Amino acid sequence: MDILDASAFIPTERILLGPGPSPVPQRVLRALAAPTLGHLDPLYLAIMDRTCTMLREVFRTNNPLTFPVSGTGMAGMECVAVNLLEPGDEVIVGVNGVFGTRMVDVMARCGATVHPLETTWGDTFTVDQLGDLLDARPRVKLVGIVQAETSTGAHQPLAGLADLVHERGALLVVDAVTSLGGQELRVDDWGIDAVYSGTQKCLSCPPGLAPVSFGPRALAAMDARKTKVQSWYLDVSMLRKYYTGGGGGGRVYHHTAPINMTYALHEALAMVLEEGLDARIERHAQMHRRLRAGLEAMGLRYLPRHSLHTLNCIGIPAGADDAGVRRRLLEEYGIEIGAGLGPMAGKAWRIGLMGHGASVRNVDLVLAALEKILRA
Amino acid sequence: MDILDASAFIPTERILLGPGPSPVPQRVLRALAAPTLGHLDPLYLAIMDRTCTMLREVFRTNNPLTFPVSGTGMAGMECVAVNLLEPGDEVIVGVNGVFGTRMVDVMARCGATVHPLETTWGDTFTVDQLGDLLDARPRVKLVGIVQAETSTGAHQPLAGLADLVHERGALLVVDAVTSLGGQELRVDDWGIDAVYSGTQKCLSCPPGLAPVSFGPRALAAMDARKTKVQSWYLDVSMLRKYYTGGGGGGRVYHHTAPINMTYALHEALAMVLEEGLDARIERHAQMHRRLRAGLEAMGLRYLPRHSLHTLNCIGIPAGADDAGVRRRLLEEYGIEIGAGLGPMAGKAWRIGLMGHGASVRNVDLVLAALEKILRA
Repeated sequence: MDILDASAFIPTERILLGPGPSPVPQRVLRALAAPTLGHLDPLYLAIMDRTCTMLREVFRTNNPLTFPVSGTGMAGMECVAVNLLEPGDEVIVGVNGVFGTRMVDVMARCGATVHPLETTWGDTFTVDQLGDLLDARPRVKLVGIVQAETSTGAHQPLAGLADLVHERGALLVVDAVTSLGGQELRVDDWGIDAVYSGTQKCLSCPPGLAPVSFGPRALAAMDARKTKVQSWYLDVSMLRKYYTGGGGGGRVYHHTAPINMTYALHEALAMVLEEGLDARIERHAQMHRRLRAGLEAMGLRYLPRHSLHTLNCIGIPAGADDAGVRRRLLEEYGIEIGAGLGPMAGKAWRIGLMGHGASVRNVDLVLAALEKILRA
Repeated sequence: MDILDASAFIPTERILLGPGPSPVPQRVLRALAAPTLGHLDPLYLAIMDRTCTMLREVFRTNNPLTFPVSGTGMAGMECVAVNLLEPGDEVIVGVNGVFGTRMVDVMARCGATVHPLETTWGDTFTVDQLGDLLDARPRVKLVGIVQAETSTGAHQPLAGLADLVHERGALLVVDAVTSLGGQELRVDDWGIDAVYSGTQKCLSCPPGLAPVSFGPRALAAMDARKTKVQSWYLDVSMLRKYYTGGGGGGRVYHHTAPINMTYALHEALAMVLEEGLDARIERHAQMHRRLRAGLEAMGLRYLPRHSLHTLNCIGIPAGADDAGVRRRLLEEYGIEIGAGLGPMAGKAWRIGLMGHGASVRNVDLVLAALEKILRA
């Protein structure tokens, strides 16, 4: 390997219209490259505190325990699971795509007995379906559900779920990786007890942090644990002492946080709040409608019944070459879109319109490019 | 909170001479801020592959399974523990500071029975001490030891340990968080079976990734597991399919890697190899001697018997105000040094000379600053 050559890399500027990461604004990249501070420096702690304050606004929650986990989105899922579950617990997980399937795996690794609530990939769950399974499984401690299923583009409605779950004394856990900052999400109003997301979707920050928030019921469940959390790295009983000074004893060092990633998240959240959360969610809705109108005019078909605005999953038209089309988009236009996952591999394309990427410019370009390539 | 004000932050440029993070060169910060690529983009995969190739050189290993875990240093420790251990396994862990103590905790959370090999904080272990405990505990599967104990500055010699451990059929696991790229570390020559580190110490990259390497004995132990790895996020049986295409089936997506952090690590490793690993280790030795001579001339005393070059742990002189001196260093000079941890709190200062920070300029400045402040 030629080291000098290796060090001279300059990544090409892609237009990221896949399932994430989404395009990162220059302003966020500049914040990312600010001088590294120590993780106990008062200046850094102030930046981290402001980051958590802004996260609360974007999650629409007052939960004090709201912070970015030091890993990517899946570390957020694992953080929620390992802290809320103990061996022998029973849980229900909605499975209608890759991320529900993963939640089953992650929770089973915590020693939980998982009762999957299944439906066709691309479909979503009704309040009645969940109610029936809850009636059949009265010992369930937690219900996990994916609001924005990145693998299928399905948008799970959450209204009404919390009451149903709380009546049974269970907790509502929501995967909001592909919704936070792009789709309506109201943690407190909707009674969500624990939620996790990622930075590289609708927040338009590079991947590397997983925002999480735990409400009072989740805190009570953690306080009632009989066993240690199986992950030291993700143990909230220690993390909360660093992030909030909570749990007694003031702020205590746990692990070295990813300092520069926190700068980037700080800047990305500031941009979300400057735009306004409602305006941003409306922009995602508008760009989705614009894309959808264009795709449907070309004869392309959406696969999920209720589509996310942030991720558009369409069937690959008969005769089109899946990998060939994606390669031409990448090579001729510098546009990345996503392939289908799991049972949708070879059958679906996934076009993400997330955060900074959800613009008229990008929608019209990807439509023009797809039209040229498919017509050729 | 005033959002516009919050977004306008520019972190002060500190001289980071604490226990890490270390100062990050502009060149690495510039790489960090390069445009974000998708984690499956061929361009990104090429950057990641080159990063792993360079990591092998810096670890001095040919282990194919060498990659950066998507978390900070402690995620590296946890990754090694969860993959090598199953409930009921017995392990020996050397405990002479904070990080040995943490390794006990992390491994116990994997269901292992931990036999601590203890000595005074600041001291290190002899081959005989370890041999005696291995004789008393013949069922031990793994021996964990910290090469560079960041909490005390003690430098654990590793030569001769592997033979002893391998004779008993056990694995040698080494914590190299504060040594990789700054102290001599020869993974293959020294027979180390699994090793982990962090990016924010002697590699002079921001925190956010944990380089790990697993040798053939460790792979065999993982292949012989009877239970699933308790962490999905850190499960090497899946991670290796993404990082090396190994384990059959070619390269498979696992989780979204921290793209921009990989750029930074790529650039930091290129800088290590341009300098030359031997030259870099020698520079750390020289800067340590220069600092030590200056500190001892001022009457300050090193606490550990065998001091690391990368971290200098000295006793706080009688009459000096621990927090006051550190605050003056920070406020008047912009210099961060570390406080004592655990039983050394209030009794020790930790001066890190790591990577980019190990320079004549920094050594002479911190000596001059300390002399001024202590004399006042």
